[in-house]
Formats: sequence, structure tokens, C-alpha cells
Amino acid sequence: MEAPTPRTEVHRLPERAVYDRDVINAILDEALFCHVGFIDSGFPVVIPTIHARVGTTLYFHGSPASRMLRSMKQGIEVSVAVTILDGLVVARTPFEQSLNFRSVIAFGEARLVDDPDEKMAALKAVTEHVTPGRWEDSRPSTKKEVQATLVLAVSLDEASAKVRTGPPEDEEDDLGLAYWAGVVPLAFVAEEPIPDEGVDWPAPDYLANYSRPG
Amino acid sequence: MEAPTPRTEVHRLPERAVYDRDVINAILDEALFCHVGFIDSGFPVVIPTIHARVGTTLYFHGSPASRMLRSMKQGIEVSVAVTILDGLVVARTPFEQSLNFRSVIAFGEARLVDDPDEKMAALKAVTEHVTPGRWEDSRPSTKKEVQATLVLAVSLDEASAKVRTGPPEDEEDDLGLAYWAGVVPLAFVAEEPIPDEGVDWPAPDYLANYSRPG
Repeated sequence: MEAPTPRTEVHRLPERAVYDRDVINAILDEALFCHVGFIDSGFPVVIPTIHARVGTTLYFHGSPASRMLRSMKQGIEVSVAVTILDGLVVARTPFEQSLNFRSVIAFGEARLVDDPDEKMAALKAVTEHVTPGRWEDSRPSTKKEVQATLVLAVSLDEASAKVRTGPPEDEEDDLGLAYWAGVVPLAFVAEEPIPDEGVDWPAPDYLANYSRPG
Repeated sequence: MEAPTPRTEVHRLPERAVYDRDVINAILDEALFCHVGFIDSGFPVVIPTIHARVGTTLYFHGSPASRMLRSMKQGIEVSVAVTILDGLVVARTPFEQSLNFRSVIAFGEARLVDDPDEKMAALKAVTEHVTPGRWEDSRPSTKKEVQATLVLAVSLDEASAKVRTGPPEDEEDDLGLAYWAGVVPLAFVAEEPIPDEGVDWPAPDYLANYSRPG
């Protein structure tokens, strides 16, 4: 358990806050993508992208990087959020309606990853994050491809999780009402792989039996 | 088809950009929650929350509102993103690895919804967005409950969608490689409802057969 900083301290419904590193890591590792927020010309921008965690560093790549880097000289302040939805919380009154979820929010200065070794490790981590087993089962990245990919890194020093789980929290007075109440669990499932043109052999096990967490 | 503004114009992979209002609306309506980005004390903050669309207005409530409103006098600039994940795009090389997704990003000044009628309509929309049919099948919200809920509204005038669909886009030279390639479709499914304590009758049809889009 780590102490929250002023930014990561959860102010609303603080009983749902979690600062335990293992919980934070598990959520980051299970979520397939994140939303990155940054300031562009004075306005907030939020963009989805793929991420991966390596130790206490979060790497992400793609369009946020390219957009951010237009005006970037050193680092850029970001907020990264990942959210996993676990269920609908159906209460007896709309006021108590909610979702069961696990989310992490991290704050920090994102830096451009220049070091070729760190960059390659980050790209491997991103590939393995989405499809564990794929890095060794694909054509290795060329130097040119690695150069063409922008990778950003942000430290996870300032991160907190928020978790809502369990049944609805109706007021005592409402418990006797004849409205159905409870939870509808939601799950993210992989369906049968669709081979690309020219691929006439079965998908490898790590895709045919894909699940998260793996 | 509407013309993009400078902020909504998609710069990276513009061939994936969609400005069609029906596409934007369908994505906003299917996604169960959004990520709201705003600037707090000079830093970007991204927080997940539940939203609902009514016409060309997006309503959302919960913790972002309470956090934003600490320093809010009039409106506050926000960026709202929703992202629906449709599949893993498994290419022959990590460089082309991707996700199939549908996302919307909106920019605008969020305003606090004060008018009681608009607020009630927004809360109904949020409830019906998550669980269509629930508003009429639950204990009506009291005036006090409505007052205790903070609702923000942002116009969808500045919104754009980005959609990636279909197979991987490997380079010609890689197509003959003996690595499996294709798409692993991902779907969000509802499982059997779990009744709350004291509820010993079956869940209504709109929950027992829950799916998105409905």
C-alpha cells in the first residue's frame, strides 16, 4: 500500500480507492488499451491507444504520441486511464444505478523513448501485452520499423485504482420494493479467429484460446 | 457528412476518420461509458464516467463533474472519448499489429445542467442508455436525489469518429510468411443476472437478455 499524492488521492467515494501496487498492475495488464489525456494548444485532448506496463513504467504508442509530439520538446504532462467494465449494477432506483468496474488513473510527464534497446523492449511489451506469445511467433521488427514507431513512457509513481464491485447499494427504505435488483455481469470474450487471405492453417493456441487476463 | 473542425480533423491515418453523424451517434450510444478529459490546476486529468446522448448533446455525471466543479465557474473545456473494441488485428509483424475499434472524440465546453426538467431528462437518458427499459421499471427519482446528482452537458458539434475494421495490412513482401495472421473478434457479453439479497424472482427480459447494441 502506497500513500496517495494530491493528484492520485481519490476524492469521490474514497472507499473505492485502491493504492495497492499489485491491484494497479493487474488492472493495467488486463486492459487492452488506455485513454491518454494531454493538453494541446491549451485544450484537453483524450485519445485511445495501446499500452503496456514494464515494471513501474507504462509505455504507449500511436496517435497520441504523434499528436503530442508536434509541440513537444521535453516531456509532456499526461493522464492515462484504463477502465475494465465488469457489470451493470441494477439498483431499485436510478439514483443508485452504477457499473462495476476496475480503473486506474496515472499522472506523470511522458517522455519520448529514444534509446533503441528500451524502445525495442517497449514494443515487445506492447505486442506481448495484447497477444502473449506473439513476439516470438512473428516476423521480427526491422530497424526501420522500430524507428518509424513513436513510443512514449510515463512513470507509474503517481497512479491509483478505483474499484466498484458487488451488489447495488439501495437505501434501507427501498429494499422491500418489488423491482428486480442485482448485477448483470459483463465479460469480454474472444470469438473464433478469422484467418487472413492465404492463411489456411489453424490459429495458434494463444489466439484460438485467447482470454484476458491470459 | 459534416466538415471537420481543426480539432476534430483526424491527422493520423485520416483514412480511418469518419465525420458522419449517424456513425458517431451509433458509437456513442453503444459504448457504456466514456472517458472525460479536462484540465485541473494546469494538468490534464482523464476520468471514466457514464454518459448518454440526447440529440446532439452528450450528458455525463459522477466524479468528473464533482472534481471539475471544484474550480468551475462557467463552463469547462473537455474532451470526451468513447472507444469500442471489436477485435485483435494479428499481423505477420508486430509493426502492423493493431486493434479493430470504433471510437469517437468530442471537444467542447461542458456546462452544468441546472434546469430541473433538462436534468431529469438527462438522468432518464443515462439510465436508459445503460439499461433500456429500466427507467419505468424502478422507483422514480426523488427531487432530493436529482438535486444531489451533478450532470454536465457538452454539445456534440465538434465530434469525429475513427474506425478500424478488417484484416491486417501487412506489406506485400510479408504475405508469404508462414505466420498465422488474421483477426480475433472480441465481443462484450452479458452473463446471467445475479439477484440482490431478497430478490427471488427472475430478472426482467431487458436484463436477462441484455446485449449491446440493444
